[in-house]
Amino acid sequence: MTSLTQISANRSFGGWHYQLAYDSEALNSRTRFALFLPPHASADHPVPVLYWLSGLTCTDENMMQKAGAHRIAAELGIAIVAPDTSPRGDEVADDAEYDLGQGAGFYLDATQAPWSAHYRMERFVVEELPALIETHFPVSDRRAISGHSMGGHGALVLSLRHPGRYLSVSAFSPISHPSQVAWGQKAFEAYLGNDTALWHQHDATELLCRATEDNFCPTLVSQGLADPFLDNQLQPHHLVDAAGASGYPLTLEQHADYDHSYYFIATFIEQHLRFHQEVLNAR
Amino acid sequence: MTSLTQISANRSFGGWHYQLAYDSEALNSRTRFALFLPPHASADHPVPVLYWLSGLTCTDENMMQKAGAHRIAAELGIAIVAPDTSPRGDEVADDAEYDLGQGAGFYLDATQAPWSAHYRMERFVVEELPALIETHFPVSDRRAISGHSMGGHGALVLSLRHPGRYLSVSAFSPISHPSQVAWGQKAFEAYLGNDTALWHQHDATELLCRATEDNFCPTLVSQGLADPFLDNQLQPHHLVDAAGASGYPLTLEQHADYDHSYYFIATFIEQHLRFHQEVLNAR
Repeated sequence: MTSLTQISANRSFGGWHYQLAYDSEALNSRTRFALFLPPHASADHPVPVLYWLSGLTCTDENMMQKAGAHRIAAELGIAIVAPDTSPRGDEVADDAEYDLGQGAGFYLDATQAPWSAHYRMERFVVEELPALIETHFPVSDRRAISGHSMGGHGALVLSLRHPGRYLSVSAFSPISHPSQVAWGQKAFEAYLGNDTALWHQHDATELLCRATEDNFCPTLVSQGLADPFLDNQLQPHHLVDAAGASGYPLTLEQHADYDHSYYFIATFIEQHLRFHQEVLNAR
Repeated sequence: MTSLTQISANRSFGGWHYQLAYDSEALNSRTRFALFLPPHASADHPVPVLYWLSGLTCTDENMMQKAGAHRIAAELGIAIVAPDTSPRGDEVADDAEYDLGQGAGFYLDATQAPWSAHYRMERFVVEELPALIETHFPVSDRRAISGHSMGGHGALVLSLRHPGRYLSVSAFSPISHPSQVAWGQKAFEAYLGNDTALWHQHDATELLCRATEDNFCPTLVSQGLADPFLDNQLQPHHLVDAAGASGYPLTLEQHADYDHSYYFIATFIEQHLRFHQEVLNAR
């Protein structure tokens, strides 16, 4: 492990918010992430961790600054880790648009050049970052995962692809069936090539259709009904249909008037954290 | 009144967050501000308003996005109005540094050219904006004021200069004695000229020294002790000394480890809103 550097530290709700950076092997580049440690986390009292995956154009900062999650995480004794949404840097391939390349890693390991040199967000989020966190901070190996939009898709897909890795999963406004919408098709074609069978291995709806009972993970999805991306990019009813077919324990809550912004997330983050806490604290 | 334009509307904690714009007479320019209206505000049930004044470099967005205030304001039934920190636009005088000009209006009416053409933030915040809000939205004339840093200074000064206008005042990390620190001296010299007697009419510590009992307004000040600006720009003990001399009802709370960021504000905004609510709801 190359050196972990602390960029900043802010006291927040009795805990600490850190921005940290290190040279990631998975991403083959330096990466920044954020960590909220609740009060009283210690080697004697390690706390569970919620991994938060942000949406297109975001960094580690959006959720930490805008979701109002520290208050509840401090109360419940849950750490939050927010990685960046892609590898970054001059040496990292990029795209002129916001929905591919830097800021748009889609939480998968790219197989196609030029992306495959750095875009290995799945390995980074699922393996490397938790190993780092669990080595350096007073946290347990009890993990949950959540996210927004592209990151809601990421949370769903990573939990489905890695059974047992996360005890609970939730998503705000996730891209639910990426193989069938413009954001997902553009990303999958660039990162994974033209093999749609491979796409389906990274598609929450397709994975849910094939889920078996021993892989079930409690799942909460929240969606605002005034979200401008609802019909053409998000389509959460595809998740409900797929979960219904396999009996997957997925709950979709729909909220009139709420949109795609962090005001929606802030309004319901307490519900999500309490949902995770029920599972994280059950032994 | 020229037309009030709605830029955006977000459902938040059962209420609504709006960004609005209009052509301000006081500022002689178009200005944008934010309004949070709690649930159940109506013509039959008008709600009190907290005016929030942000710090250097901020806009109407910082507090609304980062303070986590909507949750409590929704619960307590308080509207929040966040103006911009200065007039804006190509025709508005500016400075190359962050601490003067656009984003740094210091909530006073400039007397000096070129600033006096647009920089009339005191008239804007104290008179024009409340008149607009109270005409167009279901709010009462019960007002409180708060702010951060330059805006904490603004809240204190505007409440002291306009007795009865606000029922309560609070400040996070305010510039307490601007006549004696670099930020204040630079702004006062540019906006007000060299007459230090005039400066003192816009300086919270100087005004507190001369406050008389019929002008007293309940005042809460919160300061983080790890704030990098504490000793050289903020100096809240000057407020305490001045309030002690005049018997002014000012409470300073100091918090170990907290800094100048919105993580500090988010941690204590609930306390501030409940402080205001006690006064706003007492009849």
